[in-house]
Amino acid sequence: MADLDGARWLVLDLDRPPPGGDPLLADARAIAAAEPRVLDAGWACYLAAPLRAAGGRRAGDAPLDLDQWRRRPGVRRAWIQDDDTILAGLPWRDGKAGFEAGGWRTGRDDLLLIAGPCAVESREQLDEVAAGVAAAGARWLRGGAWKARTSPYDFQGLGARALELLRDAADRHGLAVVTEAIGSDELRAVAELADVVQLGSRNAQNFPLLRKLGAVGKPVLLKRGFGCTLRELEYAAEYVLAHGNPRVLVCERGIRSFESATRFTFDINAVPLLKQRVHLPVIADPAHGTGQAALVEAVARAAIAAGADGLMLEVHPDPARALSDGRQAVPLRDFARVVESLRPVAAAVGRRL
Amino acid sequence: MADLDGARWLVLDLDRPPPGGDPLLADARAIAAAEPRVLDAGWACYLAAPLRAAGGRRAGDAPLDLDQWRRRPGVRRAWIQDDDTILAGLPWRDGKAGFEAGGWRTGRDDLLLIAGPCAVESREQLDEVAAGVAAAGARWLRGGAWKARTSPYDFQGLGARALELLRDAADRHGLAVVTEAIGSDELRAVAELADVVQLGSRNAQNFPLLRKLGAVGKPVLLKRGFGCTLRELEYAAEYVLAHGNPRVLVCERGIRSFESATRFTFDINAVPLLKQRVHLPVIADPAHGTGQAALVEAVARAAIAAGADGLMLEVHPDPARALSDGRQAVPLRDFARVVESLRPVAAAVGRRL
Amino acid sequence: MADLDGARWLVLDLDRPPPGGDPLLADARAIAAAEPRVLDAGWACYLAAPLRAAGGRRAGDAPLDLDQWRRRPGVRRAWIQDDDTILAGLPWRDGKAGFEAGGWRTGRDDLLLIAGPCAVESREQLDEVAAGVAAAGARWLRGGAWKARTSPYDFQGLGARALELLRDAADRHGLAVVTEAIGSDELRAVAELADVVQLGSRNAQNFPLLRKLGAVGKPVLLKRGFGCTLRELEYAAEYVLAHGNPRVLVCERGIRSFESATRFTFDINAVPLLKQRVHLPVIADPAHGTGQAALVEAVARAAIAAGADGLMLEVHPDPARALSDGRQAVPLRDFARVVESLRPVAAAVGRRL
Amino acid sequence: MADLDGARWLVLDLDRPPPGGDPLLADARAIAAAEPRVLDAGWACYLAAPLRAAGGRRAGDAPLDLDQWRRRPGVRRAWIQDDDTILAGLPWRDGKAGFEAGGWRTGRDDLLLIAGPCAVESREQLDEVAAGVAAAGARWLRGGAWKARTSPYDFQGLGARALELLRDAADRHGLAVVTEAIGSDELRAVAELADVVQLGSRNAQNFPLLRKLGAVGKPVLLKRGFGCTLRELEYAAEYVLAHGNPRVLVCERGIRSFESATRFTFDINAVPLLKQRVHLPVIADPAHGTGQAALVEAVARAAIAAGADGLMLEVHPDPARALSDGRQAVPLRDFARVVESLRPVAAAVGRRL
Repeated sequence: MADLDGARWLVLDLDRPPPGGDPLLADARAIAAAEPRVLDAGWACYLAAPLRAAGGRRAGDAPLDLDQWRRRPGVRRAWIQDDDTILAGLPWRDGKAGFEAGGWRTGRDDLLLIAGPCAVESREQLDEVAAGVAAAGARWLRGGAWKARTSPYDFQGLGARALELLRDAADRHGLAVVTEAIGSDELRAVAELADVVQLGSRNAQNFPLLRKLGAVGKPVLLKRGFGCTLRELEYAAEYVLAHGNPRVLVCERGIRSFESATRFTFDINAVPLLKQRVHLPVIADPAHGTGQAALVEAVARAAIAAGADGLMLEVHPDPARALSDGRQAVPLRDFARVVESLRPVAAAVGRRL
Repeated sequence: MADLDGARWLVLDLDRPPPGGDPLLADARAIAAAEPRVLDAGWACYLAAPLRAAGGRRAGDAPLDLDQWRRRPGVRRAWIQDDDTILAGLPWRDGKAGFEAGGWRTGRDDLLLIAGPCAVESREQLDEVAAGVAAAGARWLRGGAWKARTSPYDFQGLGARALELLRDAADRHGLAVVTEAIGSDELRAVAELADVVQLGSRNAQNFPLLRKLGAVGKPVLLKRGFGCTLRELEYAAEYVLAHGNPRVLVCERGIRSFESATRFTFDINAVPLLKQRVHLPVIADPAHGTGQAALVEAVARAAIAAGADGLMLEVHPDPARALSDGRQAVPLRDFARVVESLRPVAAAVGRRL
Repeated sequence: MADLDGARWLVLDLDRPPPGGDPLLADARAIAAAEPRVLDAGWACYLAAPLRAAGGRRAGDAPLDLDQWRRRPGVRRAWIQDDDTILAGLPWRDGKAGFEAGGWRTGRDDLLLIAGPCAVESREQLDEVAAGVAAAGARWLRGGAWKARTSPYDFQGLGARALELLRDAADRHGLAVVTEAIGSDELRAVAELADVVQLGSRNAQNFPLLRKLGAVGKPVLLKRGFGCTLRELEYAAEYVLAHGNPRVLVCERGIRSFESATRFTFDINAVPLLKQRVHLPVIADPAHGTGQAALVEAVARAAIAAGADGLMLEVHPDPARALSDGRQAVPLRDFARVVESLRPVAAAVGRRL
Repeated sequence: MADLDGARWLVLDLDRPPPGGDPLLADARAIAAAEPRVLDAGWACYLAAPLRAAGGRRAGDAPLDLDQWRRRPGVRRAWIQDDDTILAGLPWRDGKAGFEAGGWRTGRDDLLLIAGPCAVESREQLDEVAAGVAAAGARWLRGGAWKARTSPYDFQGLGARALELLRDAADRHGLAVVTEAIGSDELRAVAELADVVQLGSRNAQNFPLLRKLGAVGKPVLLKRGFGCTLRELEYAAEYVLAHGNPRVLVCERGIRSFESATRFTFDINAVPLLKQRVHLPVIADPAHGTGQAALVEAVARAAIAAGADGLMLEVHPDPARALSDGRQAVPLRDFARVVESLRPVAAAVGRRL
């Protein structure tokens, strides 16, 4: 399939399977019926069968009779699209019901609160944090098992043992676990023990890993690369969707800019823009997005006000002694107060926290 | 005065003048008394007399007896400071009462709402907008008289005539006028007819103009340069303060980043950071900060939630026909609804709009 | 004149005046003859009379008979152009001969070497530098009289006295003077005493000043704003050209990026890109573009190799004691060696230094 | 090992092994002898045994007797270092002889020329390119087997078959092969068939992959992440070195900035800065660094002039039909001419191409 600059997509949303079939899949017969016709019409064919899509792309401005496509058997809807967010884009949603991830259901008023330490450091640390954040309203427990660290001589995480600690702490406190798979090797273990698999900012365009996340069988939280455009985030989500996993959340976590007073620049514009372009839940990470605990609460409020569907916060019992990123962690003793301060803002925009 | 890398400031807040004197000025005798002692102590002297400051700067780590300075006659407070935000920084505030600008008083719960067209285009356009934004709760009317345009062939503004139209429309609708002085020549006219003088993003480091704003006798709204750090914005404010004008507001309006989906990246981190570093009101401009009308409302909510003291919005009766920046203007017919949507967020953070 | 998104220009290059007229101006009768026809044809008219241009802009894709325009009396050439670099763009050049500035002639193999201190500090400092750089091959002496400094408490330059020192030192050592006019007030004095007027990076979009540079009667060196795109630099040049001054040089001096190891990021791509888009000499400033003396020589070589027409370097007898920007100044004792190292690179690309 | 802000390193360069041992390894007895002493002295121990390093890191300013360490048996050199570039930094080099990679020897005057298509598309395409670039002086053949593409619907590369085509074409034309391993799965195949393994810009902080590159047994070419600082590139190299692979080359390929006229901003400053901070060969990639074929030659010249040790260029027989990144590919028919234009610049800086 060649790069077709300026090419357009014909997107076909095909019939769902008969009762008893997987409602997330298109009907196999509809796919089989559509494909040759797409090819005959001169479109380089693409079939995202597991997700009920069939489509194609071609260059040029040749006239096109969409109604004719819509009348084809097995075709529910048909449209033309310029960019490659076939499955991630708003047009695809079509009233679909959202999905469940780690006990949280997308598409409703409830905001998702994710909290936990940057890195899992010990059973005691994690248990203390899990208890505290659960009490304050968090749904998911975060915590790095393998850490992506700039220097090889920085703390690299406790690895597999951290996964067990996360699972254990979450279970005891009624939380779900989200943690990062920093590579293909770690993905298996993460997918087994975590409820949601996180892809980190430095892997935001690790395409082999994105493909594997398409087959991982767990919801996926994609962080924006700090050097990546929103389009690149959308296309990373499209990778996961196109490889078979419909449960994708995207996360704005700050980008690199020339401003040096903060570690990153939280791109607040990204929140409404993503909501206007993709049908995926948008999570905000003001810890990484600011790099300073003193700014986290204000930016968390801002993200909710801008329409974010959830927040990911870093919490530590003693930030000054954290093994990584202590500067951006909210002290555990302040966490409940921070969450309380967010609730009226959530209510002001019709959400619940 | 040489550049002293790593130098520190001795800041002296001197006695206020006796009754009858200008309460914004330090007592002349206190200044006269402090100066030789500062020099004697080896400090390169600096006296910001009109604003009650006397201080100095020197390199090195020589021990310093601050208590001794505090006991000096005429000295109310004394401290050491690393950066150059002597008059803009939080330490300087000391419970001072804020100021009044265009009928709005800083330091209270009321949010400042500024609205109007990007450019003044005609009496009819301006009057229609002024009536609409006043009804919706705006306090200040904005509108460009001379426009800073990238190309010499773009509409450059109506100039002096626009100032009169602004004054007239504002007076009829009970609004104050804020408008940009794009150069020294235009400053005189703006200062005469406007209630607040705006310095534009492209003049954010126009130091001769900043100095003149120190003597302009009207409050000044400083927009951040889209290529400037927050420190540079703070120092631009310090220029105005140090040249004698205590009434300065600063405005975040988006910075340049690699993200191309939006015209600028609104730096939401800037809002709490500025509030933690300077005692000046912080205004947010989500129109320039996004460049897209469809994002303005969400980012306006975010700015309020993050602690902004006011908003500047662009409003146009017919954005598609605007002579400049139509894409980021809220249609006038939607403006009241947008403001309504902001009120609950303001209330959620203890502010009124 | 409205903003016409996607509008195009009809550019007419008109007849030159009869013998005895100013060869830089179009013939007045040709202008008078063209204008009504441009208007009649539905173009919003624009006349850059002093520079022999007449043109217009209109939206839409209406068909256009260029040959018909070319046959009109008084019209030498006619073409369609999308962007606003009418006078700065390559199509306008048409074999025109370049110009002379400070004793250097553009469009030839000779590279222009500009050197001097960041700020003029004293007669002795300046004379020592002028002697040294002249001996090493510099043509223009640079040096700040009024300095644009981030903090109001940094050294602001010696002002008018520095201008006299510059003139004097340059005259004694056979150099031309280039120095920055940081505002309209300073422009008069600079234009009187300097050979070339520099516009600084922080004034790169100071449009009133750009307009005045159109009438200044001296060549102008425009520095790129560190937050400005190349298009904005080109349009800044267009401002000066359209306001009557054909002698403009543009200078790449580094942009802001997320990289913090250097003060700015020298945009080497800008050098060939500008050469391919505008017919103006392109000067490189590796001192500001790196912020580190240790990188200046390598980046100076790079700029020459990439096609720059000249270099601006900062030189100081004792950088550690410089009153501004000492870190990026080449020590005077090393300057001749640095220039020697540049000569073979210049020769390798067919230039002379 | 905790994060030690402001911590310093004690670096020990240990004795080489007795004759017959691997000259790249430290003597095992020297390592065994040093370790307890380092621990006893309160340093968190770090031993980079395969590369002759032993060291440690600790916070604070405790006085330190370096001479005492130097007198210890088995210790050749000892020093203190602030950053984590222990093995990558200049101090480590100590006259070491460089290394051989794909038939090219580092540390000499010869420049390394790498050329080939962005993606391997067919046997014919590759053979034509390989023949052409070999004739023009290239040493390594580049070409993507698996491509990292932003959209899942873009051409993703021919995969394993492309590796065989690369090996075959390179062998027939006397070239070495460098190609990217986009993930751990692909690494095995790449390491088997290629002479040099490339890590792509989007994997610049894929730490699991960096660790594996430490054990890959082939030289590694690390591209800078387009959102990564130079320090991050240096630490990526340190990962590979610390995990046992001493043969690392680093590549500047452009960063993201606000400038939109070019796809990326080639950071020319990076070239001399890297040469001053690490002892690794620095390669320049002006194809990605500009994104425009028309700029490649000028920026390639610039990179050589700035001190780059090699160039990576994209070449295609018919760029308009390339399956990826055709815009930045030099047409094959122009390649020999481009190389010829680089030779005088190389000679001007004492290099050979």
